[in-house]
Amino acid sequence: MNRAPIGIFDSGLGGLTVARAIYQALPNDSTVYFGDTARVPYGPKSPATVRRYSLEITDWLVRQGVKAIVVACNTSTAHALEALQDATIVPVIGVIEPGARAAVRANSSGRPIGVIGTAGTIQSRAYDRAIDAVAPGTEVVSAACPLFVPLVEEGWFEHEATRVVAAEYLAPLLQRGIGTLVLGCTHYPLLKPLLARVAGPGVALIDSAEETGLELKRLLAERDLLAPGDADRRVFHRFAVSDDPERFRTVGSRFLGERLAAAEVVALGGH
Amino acid sequence: MNRAPIGIFDSGLGGLTVARAIYQALPNDSTVYFGDTARVPYGPKSPATVRRYSLEITDWLVRQGVKAIVVACNTSTAHALEALQDATIVPVIGVIEPGARAAVRANSSGRPIGVIGTAGTIQSRAYDRAIDAVAPGTEVVSAACPLFVPLVEEGWFEHEATRVVAAEYLAPLLQRGIGTLVLGCTHYPLLKPLLARVAGPGVALIDSAEETGLELKRLLAERDLLAPGDADRRVFHRFAVSDDPERFRTVGSRFLGERLAAAEVVALGGH
Repeated sequence: MNRAPIGIFDSGLGGLTVARAIYQALPNDSTVYFGDTARVPYGPKSPATVRRYSLEITDWLVRQGVKAIVVACNTSTAHALEALQDATIVPVIGVIEPGARAAVRANSSGRPIGVIGTAGTIQSRAYDRAIDAVAPGTEVVSAACPLFVPLVEEGWFEHEATRVVAAEYLAPLLQRGIGTLVLGCTHYPLLKPLLARVAGPGVALIDSAEETGLELKRLLAERDLLAPGDADRRVFHRFAVSDDPERFRTVGSRFLGERLAAAEVVALGGH
Repeated sequence: MNRAPIGIFDSGLGGLTVARAIYQALPNDSTVYFGDTARVPYGPKSPATVRRYSLEITDWLVRQGVKAIVVACNTSTAHALEALQDATIVPVIGVIEPGARAAVRANSSGRPIGVIGTAGTIQSRAYDRAIDAVAPGTEVVSAACPLFVPLVEEGWFEHEATRVVAAEYLAPLLQRGIGTLVLGCTHYPLLKPLLARVAGPGVALIDSAEETGLELKRLLAERDLLAPGDADRRVFHRFAVSDDPERFRTVGSRFLGERLAAAEVVALGGH
């Protein structure tokens, strides 16, 4: 048993879908969420830069006394997970392995698995490797979808423009006959109903956020780090950002609803 | 006469439309362009952060020996121009005043002037103030268009999705009967043909990039800082970025064509 909070971080807002999944999987646990809003997006940045930023954030989270860290950002998981695990004293998990495992489980048909994400995540081929590690030889087809993040942040979850963009991005994957589609970016779960319609009923959608929440629960249970479920527990959810807490609150409430009350500002990187 | 280069900077790629306009207006002048690709976009960042980043870049440009600086970024002009002018020994001009003056000149009809830009530029109301300074009492209606930058960077200048997005963003301005539309973001000139069709023939489009090139030419002529037009001139265009020069080159060639050969990487901010 351990009452220390869980650290969660993302380049910005997207990781809030992972935070939400963690609240559901671990209702007795507190969390500290860091959104690197001053340096968002990580998607188009170089691997070395993403690693440097991610290390700065995990250092900060460890100083807040977290008992585990969830990298709630696919780009950061792709480029930095191993470096973070090497550099950090608490367990660190990412979003890619849980998503890859769930995709293989869902893909009983033997059809190719589709993966969509930011340019950085797709170029890294991290999902290809993770899927191959679980089920060697599985065919993976992937596509970078750089417009989905701004469409989600605009709140256009059901907009005609989003449908046109999704049809264009998914067309090559659907032509290849994918049976499963991994939403390889933490913003994408908010597009799930629209993507399900564009992909059609024959394609199973995998939400890495949910899978990561369940994975974290298993990990904490294994190490006896779950928070106790006693009555006097004081669960808190703390939010910190590197810039513009007002926009984080406004757009973030699209992800989390009323739970996102306020965010403090923390300067990182040479300050 | 002065052969020192002109400094140009932007949060990323968009300022290349301004660079192109400067090459046209000042064919004998060399330039040093800085794109802050590690920290792009500035649009959603707080004014204080944008000011800090802009000061770091102008310091670097001054150390490269530039004779003048063009802030080729609307957000940075809106939040930082005065601070840069106070802190810098060479003349500094932005993109907003030239655009505002051209809009007033074009707007002989007395109808409202429309302004589109990033969230940061629109919230700053910098165009409203600049237009009011030239033609007090002019009605200005504005709209933030956060999806246009990613659509341009995707190269979707004529895509159906871009048309749907543009129709949605421009609808409230067109309903108000604007006679002139200021493209208040340096990415937007690449959408000019599509925006002209969506806005219709009754609306004059103002490209701040062109106006800024002409303004710079006037300023340098006034101070006798133009480069000589002699035969042995060696005009160069140098490019520096804070991250990922490969993506800058690939996407930037959509803005500049073959002139964008290579970019060096320069670390700023606590390095």
